[in-house]
Amino acid sequence: MRITDIREAAAPLGAPMRNSVIDFSKMTVSTVAVITDVIRDGKPVIGYGFNSNGRYAQGEIIRSRLVPRILALSPEEQQTAAGDNLNPAQLYAAMLRNEKPGGHGERAVAVAAVEIAIWDATAKIAGLPLWRFLGGDDVQPRAFTYAAGGYYEANEGISGLVEEVQGYLDQGYTWTKIKIGGASLDDDLRRIEAVLELLDGDGSRLAVDANGCFDLETSLRYCAAMAPYGLRWFEEPGDPLDYALNNEVIRNYAGAVATGENLFSLQDATNLIRYGGLRRDVDYLQFDPALAYGVTETVAITQMLENEGWSPRRFIPHGGNLLALALTSALGLGGCESYPGVFQPFGGFADNTLIEDGYVTLPDVPGIGFEKKEKLFKVLKKMVE
Amino acid sequence: MRITDIREAAAPLGAPMRNSVIDFSKMTVSTVAVITDVIRDGKPVIGYGFNSNGRYAQGEIIRSRLVPRILALSPEEQQTAAGDNLNPAQLYAAMLRNEKPGGHGERAVAVAAVEIAIWDATAKIAGLPLWRFLGGDDVQPRAFTYAAGGYYEANEGISGLVEEVQGYLDQGYTWTKIKIGGASLDDDLRRIEAVLELLDGDGSRLAVDANGCFDLETSLRYCAAMAPYGLRWFEEPGDPLDYALNNEVIRNYAGAVATGENLFSLQDATNLIRYGGLRRDVDYLQFDPALAYGVTETVAITQMLENEGWSPRRFIPHGGNLLALALTSALGLGGCESYPGVFQPFGGFADNTLIEDGYVTLPDVPGIGFEKKEKLFKVLKKMVE
Repeated sequence: MRITDIREAAAPLGAPMRNSVIDFSKMTVSTVAVITDVIRDGKPVIGYGFNSNGRYAQGEIIRSRLVPRILALSPEEQQTAAGDNLNPAQLYAAMLRNEKPGGHGERAVAVAAVEIAIWDATAKIAGLPLWRFLGGDDVQPRAFTYAAGGYYEANEGISGLVEEVQGYLDQGYTWTKIKIGGASLDDDLRRIEAVLELLDGDGSRLAVDANGCFDLETSLRYCAAMAPYGLRWFEEPGDPLDYALNNEVIRNYAGAVATGENLFSLQDATNLIRYGGLRRDVDYLQFDPALAYGVTETVAITQMLENEGWSPRRFIPHGGNLLALALTSALGLGGCESYPGVFQPFGGFADNTLIEDGYVTLPDVPGIGFEKKEKLFKVLKKMVE
Repeated sequence: MRITDIREAAAPLGAPMRNSVIDFSKMTVSTVAVITDVIRDGKPVIGYGFNSNGRYAQGEIIRSRLVPRILALSPEEQQTAAGDNLNPAQLYAAMLRNEKPGGHGERAVAVAAVEIAIWDATAKIAGLPLWRFLGGDDVQPRAFTYAAGGYYEANEGISGLVEEVQGYLDQGYTWTKIKIGGASLDDDLRRIEAVLELLDGDGSRLAVDANGCFDLETSLRYCAAMAPYGLRWFEEPGDPLDYALNNEVIRNYAGAVATGENLFSLQDATNLIRYGGLRRDVDYLQFDPALAYGVTETVAITQMLENEGWSPRRFIPHGGNLLALALTSALGLGGCESYPGVFQPFGGFADNTLIEDGYVTLPDVPGIGFEKKEKLFKVLKKMVE
């Protein structure tokens, strides 16, 4: 059993909006197809993957470094000891040969796109949805989700923001998240208050996200101004690696802080837990499997959290895609981000998925379920046509 | 005044050897040429740059993300307020537009290659060597250097290692560094002892480098076994981001520890200083300017060190190339790594440079001095022919 070919193609990320730090209109992602020699229903099993939003396509790393290392392996090196499936852990290790430790940036994104495709193929070979293949028989095909949006779109204004959030509520979402830091504090407070009005003033249903743009002083000004709202969380106040700033924010803010989407490895995640000052009973972690080396590393991060006394329910991954959803269910995480309507066709869940009282049902098909999202699958399929 | 074109080409890094973690035979680097509309001696001023060894070429990031952002700037945005030179700080900031914070990996390497070329052009426009342009009139065109080598080359054995180090001494180097962790502890101790014999048993002239391959237990076994030698330093015992391991090693080892070459940003460097347990009067820092965003970030890192009470003499950059040498002189760092004979043509200093009692003289030509290293300049020049 072996992987016979791996293809990569860059695709634009359909996203005209901006947060406090970046404009997404030029953002790209890498799509990957892993073709195997395993036949199911008369056709070779093909696994698909892509990296998450915010870090660009990584074709060069995939094609010049990762793919040759996998294709150089023998079938025995690619498969389980029993020879009944691919061995994702060994394939992951092979991708990291001749790679120095540290410096977890684009490489983590590139590996994630390929590694996710390997897991998609592996679950398909097992004939199981990834969430069940990884999580076992007791896993519930249902996960909490919340609607992330509230970007700074040109000419949208408060009325556009309110309309957007009303749309999320109409779709069945119960929590939402909006951006801050791309406007003045006063304007941001007006945005928050307008959304809170739709949420019956219940701050626990609204999170805000600064995307790491604040220095300590600005973070603390926002903390003081936002404290009365009792928001669900204040996400990424400052630089995601500035653990000292994170500590200061937490010392000055009784509400929850959430962070981690820009830490791309087990070691960086461990440092956040060791040095970030986060509170096990208050704060949230948001590592993104599709930016941080993929499934194997995310399982290791979840295990590290449990070893450090954290409930996996405190881990609510960034990403808003079918892979993050599958891992939320399989690993018992606290929920899964969703970006209704943006980052298309990569964001979002299976077509016609209903959001019921904030919960989403997972697709019950072999693999991650990309085949159940027509516009996404059309893009992925192109790689093998 | 403006940059009219930026070119990038990948080149193989001439290096047949391996350390404890990677085989360098497939390693590549990105070379960059920054072409300006400034005329000197009847020709446009061209700045050259390349990234340092160990992290591969980064053409995709350079061509698809960095170059378009620079070329989209107006001349006013590219130059100083006086209009008399390029403005490297503004050009650096432009390269990081639409880039999210954190995740300092390949991006830091790609930016470094371009940013170094911008500084080469800037110093050439000013008609000064970079070390004098940055460091001012009082800077000495002379820096300490040491010979890094002792890789695990096929069939070399102890006699080959001894021959190699004897060659460094014959060339005028006074300190050397060899790899550990690619063999058993016993074999590594034999390698260390064989080299010490050449150095009159003076451990302060020998450093060892594990390239981050050890877990805590193995690190401590090496600490215990190596303590009697009084070595110059024990480099990168474990994962470069594992600050807790670094602390444990330091608690169990009276000798110096050196680390930092795999931390690629000011924020990561700051975390090492905050959490790594390093001793201002004992240990060494080795951030690599040509992997870590380039000159501007290295100046900021050096300033951070001084703010934290560290002498810049404790900073001995990784890299072994003309850029690291120029910064060692300009910023008053403690020395500059050298890899005599390997990583060619990128490693090493100007042709016919004499090493005298461990010191090297800097080339006195405008820019970084790549033109004074014939085989290197031949490769760089290809981009504009």
